[in-house]
This record gives sequence, C-alpha cells and structure tokens, in this order.
Amino acid sequence: MQKLNVAVLGATGAVGQRFIQLLENHPWFQVAEVVGSSRSASREYGEAVNWVLDGSPPNSATNLTVKALEDDLDSPLVFSALPKEAAETREIELAAQGHIVCTNASTNRMVEDFPLLLPEVNADHVRLVDVQREKRGWTTGAVIANSNCTAMPVVMALAPLRQFGIKKILVVSAQAISGAGYPGVASLDILDNIVPYVSGDEQKLETETLRMLGTLHNDRVEWLPSILSASCNRVPVVDGHLVNVSIELDEKPTLEEILETWSSFRGMDPVPHLPSAPEPPLHYLPQADRPQSRRDRNTGNGMATSIGRLRECPILGYKFVALSHNTIRGAAGGSILNAELLAISGYLGSFQPNHESIVAHA
Amino acid sequence: MQKLNVAVLGATGAVGQRFIQLLENHPWFQVAEVVGSSRSASREYGEAVNWVLDGSPPNSATNLTVKALEDDLDSPLVFSALPKEAAETREIELAAQGHIVCTNASTNRMVEDFPLLLPEVNADHVRLVDVQREKRGWTTGAVIANSNCTAMPVVMALAPLRQFGIKKILVVSAQAISGAGYPGVASLDILDNIVPYVSGDEQKLETETLRMLGTLHNDRVEWLPSILSASCNRVPVVDGHLVNVSIELDEKPTLEEILETWSSFRGMDPVPHLPSAPEPPLHYLPQADRPQSRRDRNTGNGMATSIGRLRECPILGYKFVALSHNTIRGAAGGSILNAELLAISGYLGSFQPNHESIVAHA
Amino acid sequence: MQKLNVAVLGATGAVGQRFIQLLENHPWFQVAEVVGSSRSASREYGEAVNWVLDGSPPNSATNLTVKALEDDLDSPLVFSALPKEAAETREIELAAQGHIVCTNASTNRMVEDFPLLLPEVNADHVRLVDVQREKRGWTTGAVIANSNCTAMPVVMALAPLRQFGIKKILVVSAQAISGAGYPGVASLDILDNIVPYVSGDEQKLETETLRMLGTLHNDRVEWLPSILSASCNRVPVVDGHLVNVSIELDEKPTLEEILETWSSFRGMDPVPHLPSAPEPPLHYLPQADRPQSRRDRNTGNGMATSIGRLRECPILGYKFVALSHNTIRGAAGGSILNAELLAISGYLGSFQPNHESIVAHA
Amino acid sequence: MQKLNVAVLGATGAVGQRFIQLLENHPWFQVAEVVGSSRSASREYGEAVNWVLDGSPPNSATNLTVKALEDDLDSPLVFSALPKEAAETREIELAAQGHIVCTNASTNRMVEDFPLLLPEVNADHVRLVDVQREKRGWTTGAVIANSNCTAMPVVMALAPLRQFGIKKILVVSAQAISGAGYPGVASLDILDNIVPYVSGDEQKLETETLRMLGTLHNDRVEWLPSILSASCNRVPVVDGHLVNVSIELDEKPTLEEILETWSSFRGMDPVPHLPSAPEPPLHYLPQADRPQSRRDRNTGNGMATSIGRLRECPILGYKFVALSHNTIRGAAGGSILNAELLAISGYLGSFQPNHESIVAHA
Repeated sequence: MQKLNVAVLGATGAVGQRFIQLLENHPWFQVAEVVGSSRSASREYGEAVNWVLDGSPPNSATNLTVKALEDDLDSPLVFSALPKEAAETREIELAAQGHIVCTNASTNRMVEDFPLLLPEVNADHVRLVDVQREKRGWTTGAVIANSNCTAMPVVMALAPLRQFGIKKILVVSAQAISGAGYPGVASLDILDNIVPYVSGDEQKLETETLRMLGTLHNDRVEWLPSILSASCNRVPVVDGHLVNVSIELDEKPTLEEILETWSSFRGMDPVPHLPSAPEPPLHYLPQADRPQSRRDRNTGNGMATSIGRLRECPILGYKFVALSHNTIRGAAGGSILNAELLAISGYLGSFQPNHESIVAHA
Repeated sequence: MQKLNVAVLGATGAVGQRFIQLLENHPWFQVAEVVGSSRSASREYGEAVNWVLDGSPPNSATNLTVKALEDDLDSPLVFSALPKEAAETREIELAAQGHIVCTNASTNRMVEDFPLLLPEVNADHVRLVDVQREKRGWTTGAVIANSNCTAMPVVMALAPLRQFGIKKILVVSAQAISGAGYPGVASLDILDNIVPYVSGDEQKLETETLRMLGTLHNDRVEWLPSILSASCNRVPVVDGHLVNVSIELDEKPTLEEILETWSSFRGMDPVPHLPSAPEPPLHYLPQADRPQSRRDRNTGNGMATSIGRLRECPILGYKFVALSHNTIRGAAGGSILNAELLAISGYLGSFQPNHESIVAHA
Repeated sequence: MQKLNVAVLGATGAVGQRFIQLLENHPWFQVAEVVGSSRSASREYGEAVNWVLDGSPPNSATNLTVKALEDDLDSPLVFSALPKEAAETREIELAAQGHIVCTNASTNRMVEDFPLLLPEVNADHVRLVDVQREKRGWTTGAVIANSNCTAMPVVMALAPLRQFGIKKILVVSAQAISGAGYPGVASLDILDNIVPYVSGDEQKLETETLRMLGTLHNDRVEWLPSILSASCNRVPVVDGHLVNVSIELDEKPTLEEILETWSSFRGMDPVPHLPSAPEPPLHYLPQADRPQSRRDRNTGNGMATSIGRLRECPILGYKFVALSHNTIRGAAGGSILNAELLAISGYLGSFQPNHESIVAHA
Repeated sequence: MQKLNVAVLGATGAVGQRFIQLLENHPWFQVAEVVGSSRSASREYGEAVNWVLDGSPPNSATNLTVKALEDDLDSPLVFSALPKEAAETREIELAAQGHIVCTNASTNRMVEDFPLLLPEVNADHVRLVDVQREKRGWTTGAVIANSNCTAMPVVMALAPLRQFGIKKILVVSAQAISGAGYPGVASLDILDNIVPYVSGDEQKLETETLRMLGTLHNDRVEWLPSILSASCNRVPVVDGHLVNVSIELDEKPTLEEILETWSSFRGMDPVPHLPSAPEPPLHYLPQADRPQSRRDRNTGNGMATSIGRLRECPILGYKFVALSHNTIRGAAGGSILNAELLAISGYLGSFQPNHESIVAHA
C-alpha cells in the first residue's frame, strides 16, 4: 500500500511539531511537505525548527525544505497548525484548490458547513463534507476541524450520556501550559501559580462542546440543547487538560448506570478500526485520586480520555473528573484521527487504506 | 501594656511554625510555651524543629524548651496546631482546666457550642463561649475554632452577599501543597501534576461553610440555608488556595451591585480594630486574569481575600474566583485573629489590650 | 524460547515498580514472583501497590500474590529494589541459596568480589562472579550491583575518555526527585526550590565512579587512578539526573578528538547485542542548551546517556554536561541490562537466550 | 530632610518594577519619573505596566506619566533597567547631561573608568567616578554599574577570602527564571526541566567577578589574579540564584578560619551605615542542606548572601554553596545600595542624607 503524501502547515510551531512527531511511521500517511513562516521558508526543517517536544525531530522530516505559506502544495491531504489569523484565508484557499484540510485552528470550527469532528462521538458529521462541497463548488477539497483541547475531554465523557438527556454542564478546567503553544505562557506567570483565565477558551467551550455533541439533521448540526458554564484555569503542568465537571441529567440514572455506559462505550463506527483510535476511548479509574494530569495523560498513547471520581453533585446531580492529552488527542492526534476517518469514508479521492492495515488494528 | 503569655500546641509542625512566626512581635501576645511530640519534648525548640517556612525560626522561640503534650501549661491562651486525633481530647482537657484554646484542628469545628469563627463574618458567634461555659461548667476556659483553609475564601467572598439570598454554591478548588502539612504531599505526586482529590475537604466545605455563614439564634448557630457542592484539587503551588465559585442568588443583583457590596465590606465590629485584621478584608482585582495564587496570596500580609473575574454563570447566575493564603489567614493567622477578638471582647480574663494599640491600628 | 522466571524484591516501591514496568514484554525474562513488605505480603500486587509511575501496573503483574521478604523464591534470577538495610542480609542469603541477585541497592556495590556493572563500560568485571562463587562456595548464586543513578551518566561519558588519562573529575549534579523513591522528597522541600544536598550521594560518587571505571586485574578491580569531587543538588524535576562535569586529562586531546571518541563509542562486547542496550549508548547533542532533563531523559528508551556543551574549562581543561534517566538506566533498567549480560555470558545456568532474539536486536 | 527625585529607566520591565517596588518608602529617594518604551510612553504607569511581581504596583507610582526614552529628565539620580542595546548610548548621554546613572545593564559594566560596585566588597572603587568625570569632561554626571546577578553571590562569599590568596574559582550555577526578565523563559522550556545554559552568563562571570574582587591602583582596577570557570544552568525556581563553588586558596586556612572570616565580615565602610545594607551581609547556615533557593532568598530583605556546606574539595581544596536574591540584591536592590553609597560619599551634588537617618540604621 502506497502511503498518502501529506503537508503540515505551521510545521515549526508546537502543534506542528506534534503533527510531525505523530505522523512518523504512520501506516497510511507520510509527511511530504512542511510549511512554515517566512522566517523558516527555504531552510531545512531540521535547522528551521526549534524543537520543543522531547528528543529531536524525526529523521524523516529534518531534510524537508520548509515551504512558505503561499506556496502551492502537492499533497492531497493538509494538516493545519496555523495560528488563527493565518488559518482564516489560507485553509479555505487550499480547500478550494482541491486539498482536504484537517485543521486544528479555531477559526473554522464553527462554520456551519464544516464538520467539527470527534470521531467516536460524531463520525456521521463527516457528511458535512458533501454539504460544503456542494455549497462552495468544491470537488475534492474540504475543511474539517478538530476539537478545542479543553472541550475535548468534556465531549468524550458526555457523549455516551446523551441518552440520559444532558440539561446542564458546569466545567472548571485545569489546563496545561502546552495548550498555549510556544513560547506561550511565560514561566514567571505560571511557576508556583494558578492563573484563573485562558483567553477565549470559556466562550469556545460554551459553544463548540454543544456543536460536537449535536446531531446531524437535514444537513445541519443541531446543537445539543443544553447549557454550559465554563471556568478556565492555567496550571503549572506540561501536558494534559483536566476538567472538573458537574452535570444535570433529565433522566436520573444511578451512578452504576453511568459507569456501565462509559465502560461499554466504543465510539461510532468505523472509528474503532482506525489506526490512531484508542481502545477503549474512555478509561474509568476507580481510585479516589485519579485521573491525574501527569500520570494519566498518556493513556492510549495520549489518544484516550481518562475519567474518575463519579459521585453525586448536591446541586446538579452528578460530578466527575476527566482528562485528555491536550496536544495529542486535543490537537494534532485528533486531527490525524479525523483524516483517518475521511480516508476510510472515501473522502480522500482514490486513496483507500488496504484491508489488512485496518483489520490488523481492530 | 504587659503582653499575654501564650502556648502553641503542635509547635514543631508546619502550622505550628506559622503560629511561632506570626506571633513574633505580636503587640498583645508573646509565645511563652511550645508543646511538641514526645520526640521533641525536653529539647530546645530551635533544635527540635525542622523549620519548613522561609528563613529560620525567630530568636525569641529558639531557646524555649519543648513541653510534652500532657504537660501542664501556665499560659491562659493556647493556640492549637495539633493533628486531628491529638486535638480531640487534649483541647477539651485544657479548656476544662481554664485555658482559652484557639484551635486550627478540624476536630472541634462542628461541635455545636464551639464557635467556628471568621471574625469579619460572624464575630457575634463568639457568644457561644458563654454557652459552652455554662453547659460544661467551665469558668475561664473555652474552645474556639477557625475555618478550614479552603472554606475560608469562599466564606469571606460570600459573607456580604448573604443579603441577596444565597441559594446554591458550587466550588472547585485549587489547593496549595502547604495545606497538607509537612511532609504532606510527596513531590512525586504533585510536580507537573494535578491531583483532583483532597481527603475529607469536600465534606468539610459542604458543612463548615454553611455553619460559618449562619446566624446565631437562641444560642445556636442556624446554618445558612443553602446547598454547596465542592470539588477539591491539589495543585503544584506552595501557598494559596484558589477557588472557582458559581452561585445562585435569590434576588438578582446586577454585577455592579455585587462589586459595590464587596468593596464596601469592612467586616463586623470590632474586627477592623484588631491588630491582625486586614484592611480591607476583601480586594477585588479588575484584571481579567487575577487573582493568582503566587501573586496575590500575600495581600494584606496574607490575611486578606482577593476576588476577581465576577461574571455571569449561564447555569447558576454568577461566578467568580477567590483566593486566600491557606496557612496564614486559613490557619495560624486566622486563629490569632480569633484570639484578638476574644481579647477585645473580654473573654481573656483580666487581660485587656490597651486603647492605644487598638486605635493605632484602626 | 522459554522465558526465564524472575522475582522482584521490593516490588511495591518506586524502583520496584520500574522493574515491573520494564520487564513487561521483556524478550527473555518474565516476572513470576513479587516480594514486598509485611504490609503487602499475601495481597494481590495490583491491590497492594500504590503505583506512582504513569498509568497503571501492567496486567501481567496485578494478579501475582506478593510474597514476604523471608519467603523462599523459585525464580533463578532475582532483581532487588530493596532498601539498603533489608538488602544487606537478604541479598547474600538468596545468592547463597543459588539465586542470581541483580541489585539496585547501594549496600553491596563496593564489596570487593561483587561486580559493579555498567556493561558498556566494564562488562569484563562480570568475571568477579567466578571470584565470588569460589571464595564463598556458591555454585549458581551471585550478587551483581548496578550503578548509583548519579554516578551513571558520569561513568558513561568518561568511559571512552580513559584513553586520554583522566586525572581529575569535578561533578555538580542536578538530581530528580524520583531518585529519592516514594514518598521521598516532600513537595514543600522542592517546589520552587533547589536543595544543595543529597544525603550520601557525594561519597558514593567519589568512590563508585572510580571503581566502575577501573580495570580488572588479578581478579580484583583496580580503581581508576583519579580524584573526584562531587557536589549533589536536588532539583524540582520528576526524572533525569543532569551533571555538570569538569575534567583534567593527562594527554591533551582536542575537543574534536573527544567528540570523535564519544561518537564512535559502542560499548564493550557483547553489550550492543543485548535487548535493553541503547544504540548508541552516547548521544552528543550539538545545540548550545542541551541536554535538558525533561527533553532528553527518554533518549534510547531511557537507557542512553546524552552529552552536550563540550568546551574548555579554564581550570581543569575540559567541561561538559551529561544526563541519564535515573530510574531507568540509573536503576531498574541498568539492572536488567546487567542480567542480560549475565545471561549471554552463560552465568544464568542452563538458560540461554536464543540466537534470533540477539541478532534481531543487533 | 527632602528626598531626592529619581528616575527609573525601563520602568515597565521586570527589573524596572523591582526598582519601583524597592524605592517605595525609601528614606532618601523618591521616584519622580518613569521611563518606558514607546508603547508605554504618555500613558499612566499603572495602566502601562504589566506588573509581574507580587501584588500591585505601589500607589505612589501608578499615576506617574511614562516618559519616552529620549525625553529629557529632571531627576539628578537615574536608575537604569534598560535592555543592553538601549543602555549603550542612552546611559552615557544622560551622564554627559549631568545625571548620575546607576545601571543594572551589562553594557557598561566592564568599561574601565566605570565602577562596577558591590559596596561591601569594593566601595573604594567609587573613586572611579572622579576618573571618568575628569577623562570625559563630566561635572556632575557619572555611570555606575552593579553586579551581574550570578556573579554577585560568588563575589560576596569570596571577598573576605581574598586574604588567603584566591587562585582558582569553579562555579556551577542554578539560576532562577526571573533572571531572564519578562516574558523571559518560556514555561515549556523550564517546567520539570533543567536547561544547562544561560546565554552570555558564563563569560560575564569569568570576567566581572574578577574585576569586582580587584583592587583600585593608580585610578585603575587591577583584577583579582585568579582563574574562574563558570557553568550556568537555568532551573525552575522563581527567584534566587544558587551557586556551587570550589576554590583553591594560596594559603591553606582551616575550615574554621574560613567560617570565622565569613562571620566577622561586615563590609567596607561606610556600607554598614547605608539604609539598604543588610546586617550582616553574609549568613552562614550550619544545616547540612542549606542555603536553599526558596527558603533563603529573602534573608536580609533579599539583600544578604547566604552561605552553607563549607567542606573540603578533593580537587581544589574547598567547596561551598552560596545564594542571593537575583532581582533584589542581584539587580535593583544592588543598584539602590550603590546610589546610597554615592550619596553618602558626596557624589550626588548638594544632596546629603541627614545624620539621623544614617545613625538610625546603623
């Protein structure tokens, strides 16, 4: 099976580096093009990048020549780790030119005909690709967004509880520094400190969460009819966004019923067959003091969500804690899983992952 | 003016050290006796103590000989930083012997005839001293408790809002490691980590908060008729407990009315005249990202509470962030302020702070 | 190929957990017995252990019943993560009973007929097993020690430089908290802090380093004839011991010659063929600010040593920085590599790793 | 006594903020002018500054209007927290215009006729002011530099040991993040990490240290005839630079003689009479594990140097640990002490601190 060439936009930034790292040895995709800022353009990736992840950039990427943002791309599939402003026009341009753009930028997450995918939860929203193609006159191109890194563990934990009628969701986050990119949070702002504010994230949580948990109806996503209140905090943790969540449910399931619902959750088909899909997507930890940011962020190679401390909330009924790796599942890894869903769903043109690689995983 | 001799129980522990540190140069009290574990007894304090606060123990304390827990005490006023179990019987014994015991232990906080004081909020609860003396046949002794360190900023921020009818209180805490004493939290458990659990604290918050905010009626405290839901988290911060709070209010004040209520709050008389009372007790910070644990914990010498981020909560109506120094105002400093209230209220026998020292402060 | 059964002593402690973690899926060894404290004995490992590493204990270990320290063991190979005192008699007893004991305890590191192995550096010291067997009348048993976690990166970096005549070695360490075990360092002692003292480590460095770098001569290790000065510091880092090293060399190689020596170093035969051996054992990082504790500790699965910043020292001639993972290569992983060396050298009785598994690795 | 008006250059930066904070309530000086970047100019200081220190900017400064760098200044005394490049020309211009410029910038530290003052150590170097005035034709102006923040604790600890003949000095530092200003070190670079590199600091240490420890001879500073080797590391600590130091001394004092020398050190006259001078300047801590960055940085209001762990070094003879607060004594506080020395020495024109304020302190 021939691997599909992909491009990474914003490849020298923190999330861009995660794309490069996670795509190393990917069974279906291979990085063929890296796109950076004008400062990096025309240099070798290995020299241009200030690698902020552990270790060193993978050898397969170091010799690639960084392209400028405006350069034409050959790769049919494009992962975007562009900053918000740059993403706004460039992602649409590339889609119009026929590229599939899987983006981590917040810019295009709430555009009505762009799917905001968390595949285990809303794989069927992928059909918005057809909607956008028709509406915009695109044939092979598309824009597909992945979740905000803080909304992500909330959505994963709540998805299987939709059957109980989710009325209210109150979230207080403890977000890792890597969520702000690089250089991002100044060390003087966060060492021995909690900052009870993350610019823009409360608004994103209060909207994107409900869109992701919504249902596709007449080619539109109907948001989950629920109210969400979010309070976002930055904490001195390298990776891993932890959320304290209280919820009100229409039906009044027992705690055991909720646990059972979580433990039996496998995600919508065909997600369990995708190479980057965690098995299972949710891990409930029975210990009184879990999940913890450092100890549980890498569960399922950083693609799974850990949940714990389910108990009664005297106000809303139920409360629990959830945790996901914000730069893996909550950013680059999430986007890669989205691309895998597109591939297996036939949206990547002639590219078709072979049966063995799918079966091997499942 | 002759200073009053005081004893400190549990003087070698982390909170005991804060008592020693804060009582150095206190205008009314002087440390005359230090009581430690059997391991420390009969040694000089300066040698027995493993000083975990900044700097070194004050010279005035280093030469005191550590007494054993069962030793008789001469000091009329006793500050207790005993662990829960040791506190249970010893504090009552000492009160029965005629000592005023201001305790930081959780053991006696919820005893019906023991005042649980946060003086700005409930100075009038001090009259429970009369109740306990009558009930127990004590003449000069008494037991007075101070607040749990996490409930404290919640109570301070909510006290002036009682006029609006507080119906529901949802608290998610970010608690410093010093709240667990020494050695307390293992570094492997908290570096680059969040632990979403603090043993026992959620229960304490859900009860002590309502008792402190209650009203004295027929010699009993009637709890604030409200519901509280608490989720407690340990964070990698040295000092300072930060809380994200959502509340529902019966009346629907505007945000401006709440701000005005906070800014005009000075605490119940005679608290503003006490030497350790912060002026003002509440500081509202208008910046989007404050209060912060490290930067705001020492406001008012660690005795004040900082508040910020007042905004609408889509679920409960209002939300904000509050912060206090957990081992100063939330422990030793709070207990010292309680003792000052007792002194000025005439409960410390013949000891009467002179007029100048009070006026000088106010 | 049948895997060899192994026992882990002190299996519930922090280093014991690393043994359990690293032995999961080991190609030659499988954990058959776990030994813990009296508190843990007779319980299932998964319940008895307070897992302090990331994630959860591997499934293969959770159902093992914890044995008591004095229980007889069936496994021919025993890994010891015992505390110093417990190690002193038990390790010798087990060796006398015929077990091969690969120990991480410091107790037996400097016993003259016990090899202190860092296989790439002194694989030939393994012949001391014959010496101890003859001297002590043991037939199949033996005690083999691995390096102190701070000496380890020093020894790895200096080993190939012995050809230049090492006269003086000055080391200042920055040691991670995991080096102190669990609960180990109190968080109040290390958050936002440097502690310039690690009990006992300076003495260990000043002796063990020279023994490991020594040569086997007439069945005795002749220490490297050099002087070492060590200053040990504890730092707020989870894993990874970093050392600033200055050295004086008899011959005066150029910096380039030293770099060349490091880059060509592969370790003594047969180490490169062992499953846990990192390839290469040394990584020289050309960036000005590397190696760094967090970013480089996992190089070579935590088994390699990273070096950087080679430059002239105005006093001793040369200086550089080195880093290793203290609980992988500097503890459990180092001991496992030692056991692999014993296996391939024929010291594990009839157990002989098959050719394929060796070739596959090399 | 009328206070002297002072200006602060770079007043909105991290060190500039320390100047503002430390000058609040200074007995001799009052901040009359604040100078910032073009972005801040013409705004009120309280609005323009992003206050990164604890708490809030002092009220006395918040209403000052920020001046632009090129604006004329009225204050005779100017404190400079300018970045290196901006300092280069502006400080000289201001001195030429008649201002006394006490600078924390590195730019002018090694200019031969500019004193590099650490007053306890080299107060007599202040006579270079006469030299520079004569040479440059200045009448009332001058440029005076304070020490690099990492060299500072080394110089303080070594100053009294010059009598023993210091031949070699090997320093390995652990430097706090605040040494890099704001935003300075990215949190992703330092959380759970050690970075064994601080750009430029090793060179500064290897030269400035020797100049500060030098002697004034024929209107020139003759450097201490010694060799220094420095290795600089950035550590996850907010404030406080800690150094591990090994030294070779010509004479061979006993450890007791060195301790006695440190404990009797009071600094050159007239420094002990200055308001910001710590008494004593050196604190030797007898505990095995001190000084520690967090616990000892505030000794003497952050103006003193703490020393500990004096012991034999097998290579150079002696080793110890020293610590100072890098943004107080090692930056703004050091510069203020320099200005106090200038005032008392008659270099501030007609301004003369009155006798009471000096005697009150001493």
